[in-house]
Amino acid sequence: MEIGIGDDGAVVASPYQREVITTDIATEGVHFNRQWSSAYDIGAKIAIANLADVYAMGATPHYLTVAIASSGAEEVSYLLDIARGIESVASAYGASVVGGDVVAADSLTIAITAIGGVITPALRSGVKVGDYLYLTRGTGRSLGGLLLLSRGLVDADSPEVKFFQRPEFHPEDLTEFGYENIAALMDVSDGLIADLGKIAEASKVCIDLDIDEGQLEYLRDFAKKLELLPLELFLRSGEEHSFIVAVRADLQSQVPKKWIKIGQAVAGRGSQEDSGEKIRMRGSKLPFTQEVWHW
Amino acid sequence: MEIGIGDDGAVVASPYQREVITTDIATEGVHFNRQWSSAYDIGAKIAIANLADVYAMGATPHYLTVAIASSGAEEVSYLLDIARGIESVASAYGASVVGGDVVAADSLTIAITAIGGVITPALRSGVKVGDYLYLTRGTGRSLGGLLLLSRGLVDADSPEVKFFQRPEFHPEDLTEFGYENIAALMDVSDGLIADLGKIAEASKVCIDLDIDEGQLEYLRDFAKKLELLPLELFLRSGEEHSFIVAVRADLQSQVPKKWIKIGQAVAGRGSQEDSGEKIRMRGSKLPFTQEVWHW
Repeated sequence: MEIGIGDDGAVVASPYQREVITTDIATEGVHFNRQWSSAYDIGAKIAIANLADVYAMGATPHYLTVAIASSGAEEVSYLLDIARGIESVASAYGASVVGGDVVAADSLTIAITAIGGVITPALRSGVKVGDYLYLTRGTGRSLGGLLLLSRGLVDADSPEVKFFQRPEFHPEDLTEFGYENIAALMDVSDGLIADLGKIAEASKVCIDLDIDEGQLEYLRDFAKKLELLPLELFLRSGEEHSFIVAVRADLQSQVPKKWIKIGQAVAGRGSQEDSGEKIRMRGSKLPFTQEVWHW
Repeated sequence: MEIGIGDDGAVVASPYQREVITTDIATEGVHFNRQWSSAYDIGAKIAIANLADVYAMGATPHYLTVAIASSGAEEVSYLLDIARGIESVASAYGASVVGGDVVAADSLTIAITAIGGVITPALRSGVKVGDYLYLTRGTGRSLGGLLLLSRGLVDADSPEVKFFQRPEFHPEDLTEFGYENIAALMDVSDGLIADLGKIAEASKVCIDLDIDEGQLEYLRDFAKKLELLPLELFLRSGEEHSFIVAVRADLQSQVPKKWIKIGQAVAGRGSQEDSGEKIRMRGSKLPFTQEVWHW
């Protein structure tokens, strides 16, 4: 950053020929709840959601701006904690908060815009028939934490509650494989099943899920406690911010060992064999609807 | 724009080596009021405020992102009208809306981030003792329109009400003179007196106002109707988005004829002769406080 907060705008260096710009807005009672999360975690979680969109375009985040509409009830220290949470995430991933605006309002609303540099964008629309779909890290804990909190089963040490409050975020999973090897990319925001539907739609393919339930072992005990199937947590949990990656069949051997294979793209969505479905499970109808189901 | 709304982010060309980033957030009941302005004008006015900050840094706007938190009461058509108002301003000044996010909330809040290209930034801190201060266009009508509305003296054809609803915006006033001739720059957001205070503070000078009241003739009849002095409207009206320009004394002859000379920078604010004041009027104390006074 060359010139920061205090003038009419921030002046920053812009070495890339192409940039990615993403915006997220979150509001109290809809996207966060101060009974369940600290101000610091609220700020961090929104920043993670925003940076995940930058990485999901194949870009590296550089700059963030933050706009906060705060109700009179918020003390300055509360807003500073939100800002510190955002700052902690930005700096952990090499980005700077370069500008902001804070105004009074009836409720607490936080908008973040991130700008990143990109060489070759990674799009949702890049999947071709035959590509394999992978998940960089197993999903399920965010929804699990939310269900624990909403059912009053709170345990401060629960890793699921911690994950819900501040998702673990590992964009380095992508750089390890290399953006140049990625056919299509998206982060898990609304839940795997909803987000896979968007990839299928954008790529005009059908995604045939084939999930080895042995890979969902990490959810077993926990799902039991919630009286849910591990697969349901896995497919429905949103605000995860791990990545869905489509890979050409001939690059399968280079995929990092810890990624989870979840299926393959087959003809559909506009092709002659279009079944009308965007996602199937081993060739059959899904056991769940694709409806978004997150807090 | 290369890739637009619909993926995780927008991908845009970034030909400038330096960029300006600015963010504004506005919320119903504090920054706008749907009884007094149409959705289209609300969107346009927030976009103008945001683009004015870009120009006020010596930059040219390229891209905007828009984030809206809307209460359940807003119909889709109302939000589309806000978006159309924003879009109308963006396209009038050569910028594109490249991304957005819309979420549900308890009240209506709109955040806009603008990104512009800049070669040499124009800062608030560039004023030197001896520089002259100019205003690109006369201020006063925005506050005038607000006072008409709030006192129930509404006249739909009143140019002041129209200006309050959607400020006239003329960044070409700056390009006519040339950014390279500008010592310091700021747009009038909070009112001339408040904004001059910020320039004085940033530049560590005192600004000695010397306003030829003959130049305020355009406010005379109107001020009378509101039982105010023209000077008070001139100095206090915010959301004007004309520009305060500081010019070195030897460039005075090049200043466009229609600009209004408002004063000169004198020693102060940290210098030996510091009077403790940021703004004086012909060497004396101001007749008004510098307190911000806008709706």
